[in-house]
Amino acid sequence: MNIRIDNISGFPENLPEEQIVEDRYKDIIRKNYLKAGFNSIETSLVEREEVLCSKGGDDNEIYGLHRLNGEVSDDSKLGLRFDLTVPLARYVALNNDKLVYPFKRFQIQKVYRGERAQKGRYREFYQADIDIIGNGDLPLLADCEIISTIYNTLKELDFGKFTININHKDFLIGFLEKLGILEDKLLKVISVIDKKDKLDNDKQKFPKTKDLLMELLGDEKKVSQIIKFILLGNKGSLAEIEKFVLSDNESRFQDGFKKLKEVYNFLLSLGVPKIYIKINPSISRGLNYYTGIVFETFIDGFESFGSVSSGGRYDNLTGNFIKNKYPGVGGSIGLSRLLSVIGATSKLNYQIKTLTDVLVLNIDEKYLKKCLEVVKKLRKAGINTEFYLEHSKISKQIKYAENKGIRYVLILGEDEINRGVIAMKDMFVREQKEIDILSVAKIIKKEMKS
Amino acid sequence: MNIRIDNISGFPENLPEEQIVEDRYKDIIRKNYLKAGFNSIETSLVEREEVLCSKGGDDNEIYGLHRLNGEVSDDSKLGLRFDLTVPLARYVALNNDKLVYPFKRFQIQKVYRGERAQKGRYREFYQADIDIIGNGDLPLLADCEIISTIYNTLKELDFGKFTININHKDFLIGFLEKLGILEDKLLKVISVIDKKDKLDNDKQKFPKTKDLLMELLGDEKKVSQIIKFILLGNKGSLAEIEKFVLSDNESRFQDGFKKLKEVYNFLLSLGVPKIYIKINPSISRGLNYYTGIVFETFIDGFESFGSVSSGGRYDNLTGNFIKNKYPGVGGSIGLSRLLSVIGATSKLNYQIKTLTDVLVLNIDEKYLKKCLEVVKKLRKAGINTEFYLEHSKISKQIKYAENKGIRYVLILGEDEINRGVIAMKDMFVREQKEIDILSVAKIIKKEMKS
Repeated sequence: MNIRIDNISGFPENLPEEQIVEDRYKDIIRKNYLKAGFNSIETSLVEREEVLCSKGGDDNEIYGLHRLNGEVSDDSKLGLRFDLTVPLARYVALNNDKLVYPFKRFQIQKVYRGERAQKGRYREFYQADIDIIGNGDLPLLADCEIISTIYNTLKELDFGKFTININHKDFLIGFLEKLGILEDKLLKVISVIDKKDKLDNDKQKFPKTKDLLMELLGDEKKVSQIIKFILLGNKGSLAEIEKFVLSDNESRFQDGFKKLKEVYNFLLSLGVPKIYIKINPSISRGLNYYTGIVFETFIDGFESFGSVSSGGRYDNLTGNFIKNKYPGVGGSIGLSRLLSVIGATSKLNYQIKTLTDVLVLNIDEKYLKKCLEVVKKLRKAGINTEFYLEHSKISKQIKYAENKGIRYVLILGEDEINRGVIAMKDMFVREQKEIDILSVAKIIKKEMKS
Repeated sequence: MNIRIDNISGFPENLPEEQIVEDRYKDIIRKNYLKAGFNSIETSLVEREEVLCSKGGDDNEIYGLHRLNGEVSDDSKLGLRFDLTVPLARYVALNNDKLVYPFKRFQIQKVYRGERAQKGRYREFYQADIDIIGNGDLPLLADCEIISTIYNTLKELDFGKFTININHKDFLIGFLEKLGILEDKLLKVISVIDKKDKLDNDKQKFPKTKDLLMELLGDEKKVSQIIKFILLGNKGSLAEIEKFVLSDNESRFQDGFKKLKEVYNFLLSLGVPKIYIKINPSISRGLNYYTGIVFETFIDGFESFGSVSSGGRYDNLTGNFIKNKYPGVGGSIGLSRLLSVIGATSKLNYQIKTLTDVLVLNIDEKYLKKCLEVVKKLRKAGINTEFYLEHSKISKQIKYAENKGIRYVLILGEDEINRGVIAMKDMFVREQKEIDILSVAKIIKKEMKS
C-alpha cells in the first residue's frame, strides 16, 4: 500500500475526456499529412547509444536502458529516442536502397528527454514530423510542401490565428558576412540573435541583445545595423524587406533573399494566406543542422510559450551513417507543446466526455436477448454503442448516461416490444420519442448528423 | 562511419508498405473498440519500479532507465511498462474518483520486455487492450462484452478462421478439487496442464503430460480422469461437456460450468458464431491473476504460434495500490504477434505501397501555378495528392508513380490548359482519358470508389 502512484514529473497523462481531444488532434494531423502525399512510418523506441550521440546530442538529456537486475542489454548499449530526426536518418541510411525518392514520410510518436519538466516542456511528448528526403537535388518546392502542409494542418486544428515565421540561413549569414562578421564571431552573433526574444521584452529596441552584441563586436554601427535587420521581422512583409535588400548586391545575402521570395510566392499558390506567413530574418534554429529555409510557428499572442511547429532544410541527413548524401527538408508539430499552449489560450474544451453515441438500457432479464440484438445491430451500423450491464433502476441507468456524457438512451421494455418500437431519449436536448425498432440504426444515424 | 545502424534484435521496424498494413490493423481495432463503447486512454511509457514490480513481475525482463551520463532520474527509479494492465491498475487507483464506473477503456500502445527475441516474440510490441472495471459488482455480461468485442475485431481484420477458447477457473479448479487435489499440488497440476500443448504433439493422448501428472499424483485413475477432462477441449461443444458435468454435483465445478454456459449463450446473442467459440476446460492462463472467465485465441492451423488474443476476469485490479476493490475483466489483442502469425499464414499482402491516390506531374515552369492550384483543390477534397517536385522528363515522372504505387497520374500541359481539360492516367488498368479540369476532384473521387 506504500507504493507511489502519483504521476511522474514530466510524464503527463490524460483523463478520458482529455484523451479524446489529443486523439482528435492526432487524427487531423495524420489525415492532413496523408492528404499531402506523406507515408507513415514508426521507428523503434530505442536506438544504439552511438546513433543517439552521433549528432552531438546532449548526453545529460538522453535516457539509457538497463535491466532491473542490473544487466546491460546483451548486444549493445541502448537509449530512448529524443527526437524523430535522428531515427529517420538512421532509417533512411539502413533502408536506403528500398525507398523510393523523394521519400516523403510522416511519423507521429512520442520522444523522451531527461530534462527538468516545466510549463509546456515534458520528458515524454508527442512530435508529429514530416520530411521529404531527396536522392540528389531537392527543389525548393519541397520546402514549400512542408510549410504548406504544416499550415493546412494547424489551420484545421482550429485553435485560432498563428504565424509561420520563415527565413533562409543564407539571408541571415549573408547579411552578417557582409558586415565582416565571420567564423567564430558569426556563430556567437547568431547565437545571441537566436535568444533575443528570451532576452528582451522590448521587441522594438532589444536593449539586452544590443549590449551582448556590443560586447562581442565592439562596433556600434554594426550593432545598430543588426538590430535594424532583426526589426524587419516585426514587419514581416516581403515588400518592406525587399526595399532593404535592393540597396545591396552581396551575393549570398541576395541569393538567400531570392529563395525566400520564391518560397513565399509558392506558398501563396499553395493556398497559404499572406497573414499567416511572416518573413523573419532573425530566425536561425540553431547553428549546425539547418542549411537553407528555416521556420518557426507561434500562436498569435502566445509567442512567449515558444514555437509550436518548426523545421527547415538540411543538406546531408545521413552523413553520420553512410557515404551517400541525402538532402532533406522537414517540419515538426510539437503536439504536446501545442496542446499545452492551446490550453493556455482557453480554447481547448473537454465538453465531449465520450465517443460513445448510444446507451441501451437493461430493463428486464426477459428482454435481454432482444436488447443485445439491438446493440449488435447498432454496432454493425457503425454506431458506438454501450449496453448497461446490470438490471437496475432506470433512473440509475439514465444517470450513468448523463455522467458519462452519452447522448442517446434507448429503452426497450415489454410495452415497447409489443408495439415494435423503442423509446429514444436525447440527453442533450432532453427530448424523448418513440422510433420504429426495425429502423433504429438508420434513425439514430440521421439524428447524429443533424 | 563505424556506427552500427542495423535493426536492434527484438525491435523490428516496418518498411512503408508494411506500416500501411499495421496502421490499417490499428485503425480497425480502434474502430471496433469504440463501437463497443470503450474509451481511449494512453498511459506514460515509464512507471516507478515499485509499481512495475508490484505484481511480482520478472525483474530480468523489465527495462530500467538511467541518464547516459550515469545519473538515475531525480525523483525515483523508473522502468518501462511490460504490459498495459499494471499501468491500467495504477491509472484507476490514481484517478479512481474521476472515472465513471463501469469504466470501459481501450489502450493501444507498445510494451517492452527484455527477453530474448524469437519468432513472434519481440522486445517491443503492440498490445491492444480493452478492460471493463467495475465499482462493486461486475456482471458476467461484462465478460461477454469483452469476448464479443475481441471476436468482432478479429473478424473484421479478415485473416481467416480463428477459435476463441474459453473456460472458467472454477470449472477447472472445481474439477481438480473434486479429485482431492488441493493447495500446492493443485497449483502444480494446473501448471502442468497449462504447458500441455508445448509438452505434447499428440493431442489425443498427451503422453508427456500424463507422465508429469503421474509423478505429481502417483494415482493412475486420477491422471486418466484429468486427461479425459483435458480432452473435452478437443470437442469444445457445450453439449459434450454438459454430459460430463451432469454426472456430477460438486458445487464449485457446477457453478463454474453454469457461468461458462451463461457466457456461451450471451456470446451467441451478441452474434458470435458457434464455430468461433470452443469451451476448453484446460485453459487457465497462469495461476494467480485471473479469477473467473479466461480465454485464449488461436488462428486455426497455427495453434503452435501461440495465442493472438487472451484475457479474463480478475477480482481485484487495484489491490496493490489502494484499499478500494475494483473487479475487472479484460482482453488483449497481441497486434505484433498477430501480424507475425498472419505473415506465416501468407495472408498478409503488401500490395498497397502507398496511400497516396494522385500524382500531379510537373510539366513546365509556366504552368506550375496552375498545377499547384489543382493540387490544392484535390487535397481540399480529401484526396491524398503528391506533386512531382522537379521539372523532368514525363517518362521519369510516370516511372516514379509506378515505383511508388500511385494509381492516378494527372498531366496538365499547354494543350490541356488551352482546352480546359486535364489528362488522367490510371496506372493500374493502364488507361488514359481527359477530364474536365473544373470537376477533377469529383471525377477522381468517383473513380476511386468504383
